[in-house]
Amino acid sequence: MNFYTPPVQNLIDQFSRLPGIGPKSAQRIAFHLLQSSNENALGLAAAIETAKEQVRFCEVCCNFSATEVCELCQDPKRDPAVICVVEESRDIAIVERSGEFSGQYHVLHGAMNPIEGIGPEQLRVKELLNRLKDSQVTEVIVATSPNLEGEATSMYLARLLNPVGIMVTRPASGLPVGGDLEYVDELTLGRALSARQQITP
Amino acid sequence: MNFYTPPVQNLIDQFSRLPGIGPKSAQRIAFHLLQSSNENALGLAAAIETAKEQVRFCEVCCNFSATEVCELCQDPKRDPAVICVVEESRDIAIVERSGEFSGQYHVLHGAMNPIEGIGPEQLRVKELLNRLKDSQVTEVIVATSPNLEGEATSMYLARLLNPVGIMVTRPASGLPVGGDLEYVDELTLGRALSARQQITP
Repeated sequence: MNFYTPPVQNLIDQFSRLPGIGPKSAQRIAFHLLQSSNENALGLAAAIETAKEQVRFCEVCCNFSATEVCELCQDPKRDPAVICVVEESRDIAIVERSGEFSGQYHVLHGAMNPIEGIGPEQLRVKELLNRLKDSQVTEVIVATSPNLEGEATSMYLARLLNPVGIMVTRPASGLPVGGDLEYVDELTLGRALSARQQITP
Repeated sequence: MNFYTPPVQNLIDQFSRLPGIGPKSAQRIAFHLLQSSNENALGLAAAIETAKEQVRFCEVCCNFSATEVCELCQDPKRDPAVICVVEESRDIAIVERSGEFSGQYHVLHGAMNPIEGIGPEQLRVKELLNRLKDSQVTEVIVATSPNLEGEATSMYLARLLNPVGIMVTRPASGLPVGGDLEYVDELTLGRALSARQQITP
């Protein structure tokens, strides 16, 4: 038997389809919305509708954008010689927060994963190549995740771009700052050791 | 600096206001919706709008309902002599799943909490009293949570209803079925011991 009236049950079902939301959370959110003001609840509905209506992909970097070309790509202060390739839009915020990068971005919308059938055709690789043609770009930093898929993607891009004279780099692997040596896995420690740097006092 | 275009940022903000959703989850859900089909994303928006438009409180039991009187209250098979009082709408589903109750319900929408200023006036107590007038109800089961607020609420209702000849009961406290004695707190074990039952083979 269904214990909730259909509009409530539908609300719970819709929320439980979202990533990371189980049936209990979905129920909690649904009741929260039912009990909150019309303004609050309808604000969420409107935000979804506005985002789906207005947000498209930036024609240059493939990031989500409300304009044809996104703000970052239009910013004249960003270095046009370096492109940082990331897997997802959210990674741009992570790289930006580091404060160590002032170039352009390119969002692949995923990483290569042959087992799941995700190759270069499923990613925004073609868009990257088009962008590099007749450009001033000299370096592509592949900031994909340091896992199998991310490494495969960076290796593929390096093979593709090295012959046309573009340097392909990758952020260094090593010990996380503020971490404890005891909890570092041997692969990370191995890479950190082989990339060790001299201390110049 | 804001890294997302305003409609995306607004979508993330709206989701992070929901209970149990932190900024990371909100971001994940927002990007999921941006990447999913229009049908899926707008289905969620429509579900919120429909629920806010159609769902009100049942005039009898104060549960959420799409009709003036909810399905449970309209069901002629439910015993009209017993009312189970619960804190929230979701508790009805929990009691129903136990399969041990076939009477009516009443939703208080909270429990008494003097510190937070929640007294009988903030709960649907008046609606319960109106309902009990000239009714066939002989027993009110107060199935509020077995915590301070829930106990205070049940005590209050017992003092209110005993003088008018309505029996007020409470589900038994005791050991959870399938649990381990090692993990039972002393208060629960104390109550379970004083309410011990004879085994009749």
